[in-house]
Amino acid sequence: MKKQNIRTLSLIVCTFTYLLIGASVFDALESQTENRRWTTLSDIEKMIMNKYNISPDDFKLLETLILKSEPHKAGQQWKFAGSFYYATTVLTTIGYGHSTPNTIGGKLFTMFYAMVGIPLGLVMFQSIGERLNKLSSVVIRKAKRLSGCTEIEATEINLICVVTTLSSLTIAVGAAAFSRYEGWTYFDSVYYCFITLTTIGFGDMVALQKDNALDTKPEYVIFALIFILFGLAIVAASLNLLVLRFVTMNTEDERRDEAEALQAAQGAVRLEGDVITADGSILSGQLGENNAVYHNISTTTSMCTCTCNCFRRDSDLQLGPTVSMPVDSLSCDQLSMEEYEQVMEVLMVPRTRVSI
Amino acid sequence: MKKQNIRTLSLIVCTFTYLLIGASVFDALESQTENRRWTTLSDIEKMIMNKYNISPDDFKLLETLILKSEPHKAGQQWKFAGSFYYATTVLTTIGYGHSTPNTIGGKLFTMFYAMVGIPLGLVMFQSIGERLNKLSSVVIRKAKRLSGCTEIEATEINLICVVTTLSSLTIAVGAAAFSRYEGWTYFDSVYYCFITLTTIGFGDMVALQKDNALDTKPEYVIFALIFILFGLAIVAASLNLLVLRFVTMNTEDERRDEAEALQAAQGAVRLEGDVITADGSILSGQLGENNAVYHNISTTTSMCTCTCNCFRRDSDLQLGPTVSMPVDSLSCDQLSMEEYEQVMEVLMVPRTRVSI
Repeated sequence: MKKQNIRTLSLIVCTFTYLLIGASVFDALESQTENRRWTTLSDIEKMIMNKYNISPDDFKLLETLILKSEPHKAGQQWKFAGSFYYATTVLTTIGYGHSTPNTIGGKLFTMFYAMVGIPLGLVMFQSIGERLNKLSSVVIRKAKRLSGCTEIEATEINLICVVTTLSSLTIAVGAAAFSRYEGWTYFDSVYYCFITLTTIGFGDMVALQKDNALDTKPEYVIFALIFILFGLAIVAASLNLLVLRFVTMNTEDERRDEAEALQAAQGAVRLEGDVITADGSILSGQLGENNAVYHNISTTTSMCTCTCNCFRRDSDLQLGPTVSMPVDSLSCDQLSMEEYEQVMEVLMVPRTRVSI
Repeated sequence: MKKQNIRTLSLIVCTFTYLLIGASVFDALESQTENRRWTTLSDIEKMIMNKYNISPDDFKLLETLILKSEPHKAGQQWKFAGSFYYATTVLTTIGYGHSTPNTIGGKLFTMFYAMVGIPLGLVMFQSIGERLNKLSSVVIRKAKRLSGCTEIEATEINLICVVTTLSSLTIAVGAAAFSRYEGWTYFDSVYYCFITLTTIGFGDMVALQKDNALDTKPEYVIFALIFILFGLAIVAASLNLLVLRFVTMNTEDERRDEAEALQAAQGAVRLEGDVITADGSILSGQLGENNAVYHNISTTTSMCTCTCNCFRRDSDLQLGPTVSMPVDSLSCDQLSMEEYEQVMEVLMVPRTRVSI
């Protein structure tokens, strides 16, 4: 079976096993507390229903009323500040759900907004994350030079340490601030920061939902929004450093397989390293991960300034006026337009192209 | 300013503009309804408080009681099925928040679980998404061949059409099923499917929260979980096709810049295309995206089977016994171990490596 399929199947098995383990642990941790809690809550409920002699129908109405009133009691959710907060939770996929659209227009717009916004947010955070890693590597290099290290390059381990420290610091500082503003315990604030920055966003604890903070505490609103956006950039830096390479693994392998298959089909020799041609000149260069196809390396001795359109027509080649073009092992007669396209695709394919 | 920085800044400006526009539209769409809704809700609340003469303190207690009881009334959330559902919402970052851990152990385990689970889920879904795209391209090619097309390759446009159709179908079929099981309107079900598959997961509408479904309707539980996991794989296929290349843009540019800087520093000539050496032999090959460095192409005529350890010591070169190694423009005396490492890094860097 193909390596990419085996990898995907292994990942599916791992993830399902991980879900099964998770389910068992959560069951063990929460199940008993849930039963105790529910007993206590329903006891108090019965007590109040009896005290005021509330009819079951009225109690149902009261339930709906209280559940629907929750976001309203936390303050105006859809003025500009609240709407900005909501738009942020959509674009980042945090989706607390502390306040959700009630109109059909709001729901429809949310869907269209997310369709463009989520990819935009994803690309922006990854872009910032990569810049942060670059900045860290520059700082590390300078620090190493100043401290007189012999090896001044920033290693991946260095960067992982920096990004882990930055993430921990962001959560620690954020948690301290939220704990102070919201009156949560420090542990609960850490939990809130973590659930927010992983974009899980349960919504069991949501900042800016006390004392009408969205309308009355602009400085706290700004802090909370900056925390979310900055924190997500730090998380993106970690993902860029630790996860992105695994995300693109199948695509890379697929491209490599395609290039190898093309080479094999054309009977070309794949050489890794530098070689000498029959006439003693040197073909220098390493066949890198891009699998640039080296045609006819060992046999080509004749050449002409090719005037046919098999290589000429592609302006992307960017050949200077003094550079001649070879008649390759793939001669113009042999090379159909389709094969030509295939060769060009393998040779010139951008590295971020998705394998098709 | 560097291209990567300009790109990142442009993305930040775009995203903030998009957030501001979103905030204005949401404000316009929801603000008035919110006010009307709040007036109605508080009127009914006052009415019930007066009818039963409930004291403000008892009403507050009732509020807390009803809010805390909500997940319990929807059925047992932390038996195995419910815990599996919860673990799925953590791993996928949907995070409905329909039920959240109440114990410190549960919260702590959620954090550790997410730290491993989210990257695992991300890699798995992207891996499946890439395989789905590959499968689509094979099916498209076969369909084109059968229908007698001259161009049988699956283009990116073809794939985008397939993935869009599949996503729409998944949402349409899912919405029909949820509408039937949950009693939601079809529009609301579409909204639920969309909010779920984008992993926003507000939690305003959550499947499996009616009639104790988690414990009493195993077939519906299985359907809902399969819908989420399959749907997310389809979404991952779209992201793999449309977004992944933009996510890795900065990293690719950074790698290209590094290679160019190294070439420039060593006074090497970067040639794109095929060239003739002074003695008439041909250096065939395209300088691809990997920026394989071609050293001293136009001048090297002498060579030796180098015995120094400047190129030898790296076993990764995988040179066959008959392949000799050149004395490059970077002669062994000129090349320090550090420079050597740099050259090797640029030449052999895996394509998924994160630029540091």
